[in-house]
Amino acid sequence: VKVRVLGSAAGGGVPQWNCGCENCREARRGTGVVRPRTQESLAISADGAAWFLLNVSPEIRAQIESFPPLTPREPRHSPIAGLVLTNGDLDHCLGLLSLRESHPLTVYATESVRAGFTAGNVLYRTLERFEGQVTWRTLAVEREQPLGDSGLLTITAIATPGNLPLHLKSLRAPSPEDNIGLVVRDARSGKRLAYFSGVAGPSPALARAVAEADAVFFDGTFWTSDELIALGLGTRRAEEMSHWPLGGPEGSAAFLARQRGRKILIHINNTNPILREGSAERRALEAAGIEVAADGLELAL
Amino acid sequence: VKVRVLGSAAGGGVPQWNCGCENCREARRGTGVVRPRTQESLAISADGAAWFLLNVSPEIRAQIESFPPLTPREPRHSPIAGLVLTNGDLDHCLGLLSLRESHPLTVYATESVRAGFTAGNVLYRTLERFEGQVTWRTLAVEREQPLGDSGLLTITAIATPGNLPLHLKSLRAPSPEDNIGLVVRDARSGKRLAYFSGVAGPSPALARAVAEADAVFFDGTFWTSDELIALGLGTRRAEEMSHWPLGGPEGSAAFLARQRGRKILIHINNTNPILREGSAERRALEAAGIEVAADGLELAL
Repeated sequence: VKVRVLGSAAGGGVPQWNCGCENCREARRGTGVVRPRTQESLAISADGAAWFLLNVSPEIRAQIESFPPLTPREPRHSPIAGLVLTNGDLDHCLGLLSLRESHPLTVYATESVRAGFTAGNVLYRTLERFEGQVTWRTLAVEREQPLGDSGLLTITAIATPGNLPLHLKSLRAPSPEDNIGLVVRDARSGKRLAYFSGVAGPSPALARAVAEADAVFFDGTFWTSDELIALGLGTRRAEEMSHWPLGGPEGSAAFLARQRGRKILIHINNTNPILREGSAERRALEAAGIEVAADGLELAL
Repeated sequence: VKVRVLGSAAGGGVPQWNCGCENCREARRGTGVVRPRTQESLAISADGAAWFLLNVSPEIRAQIESFPPLTPREPRHSPIAGLVLTNGDLDHCLGLLSLRESHPLTVYATESVRAGFTAGNVLYRTLERFEGQVTWRTLAVEREQPLGDSGLLTITAIATPGNLPLHLKSLRAPSPEDNIGLVVRDARSGKRLAYFSGVAGPSPALARAVAEADAVFFDGTFWTSDELIALGLGTRRAEEMSHWPLGGPEGSAAFLARQRGRKILIHINNTNPILREGSAERRALEAAGIEVAADGLELAL
């Protein structure tokens, strides 16, 4: 399976529109010390012809144009064969509404994520303009199922500690299907890609999936629990925002360091010190064999 | 008043994600013959310190970063003092949901446009997380009112031939306030900027506003009525999509050619031949004293 990182930042991107923190200022300076990053999305393909996007960021248009294999071959065409949503966060779903030019879409999501985006959302009518504009394929947790029709890739949804997206909070009770990770398996090579871009904390199913993976993209949102509080930029701890901090003995970096495959952090918040080349936190990750994704990173398994 | 074009394309941008028409292919080649364009938005300011965006495109994040005066001066800050919506089209409104990082916003819109975006839209809850997150200022048609608190700029909404956004079609009857143009007046210089980026056809109020303007940004979506049909890319005529075609004796270009101020086309669809430098249509516009906006264009009145 071929993988291309379309976006590697958490919601808001790097720099974030209303943020003048040290990282955002550095990113705007263009020195390369903090590389600008768009909001998280991955493109994957078994054959280089049919591509699947894991999450659909608000910046989808620029992300598609940044990677020529995703652009049309004909007057009306797209090599994008499917879109997979791992939760209902706007930075993962809003881009769907930018794919509205009367083009049939196939979207993979749990029933909970599908309902959260389509119910009570009048904007979604823009994707209901003709019969078959969106074909939803239900992801059932822990069940391996085909991704696309070629038989070359399968995906398995893994229920992952998380929460409802902010805009659905208090509207209904959370469900284990509100937030998933994915295991993508290449049927020919047998290689496994794990994708856990939103992880509130450890779980046995998560640990199993990561242990078996040849490469994992993992939630790199925050380094410390009180990152936003310490910078005076917010009042909530990482865990309240459903993100497992990287640092410390109980942090996700320590968990990842114990894994055998390639480990790559993604969904990185603009405040995270790992964005800064040469920072102590970045060097600690490097020493632990953990990479920090940037937009445009490619790998093949 | 200072003006910066943040985006000059119609919905979908140039190139459009699923389009391989001649213009989109040329834009992807990067030859400069067809310049890439993001979706329509203008930034305006009287003093260069407080800025107002006319329409908020899905590409707002990149558009803000493309123009340093719109970026923060402090850890949490934005020079963007207000956002103005001229209709409920997603390419004009969707970007509001990308400005959700707990930042107070002031949004100017008619009551009809406000209700169309906030009612029945569960995603809008992301902008209702604290008291005062969004302050709506109602635009009443044909009434000059202050833009911001400085007294330096006023705006007047002009009811303009148009329609409901696609996702609201058939949900309610259209209202004259569903689509407006704007006249921005600089209180010191007395200069007037007219902004009519969506115009379904002529009207007396529109003609009056444009006649009095020192510069006008005008709907440049399509050259011909059957542009999409002739290219095999769509089934609807320009008028059915509420856009007055530019070409022909009854076209908007002939109307604009008769005006005294600076005339600039914006909201240009990816299929429009005026995007191509040196095309017959582009030369006809030049001969008539009509400009074609590109991203990054600046002017001062």
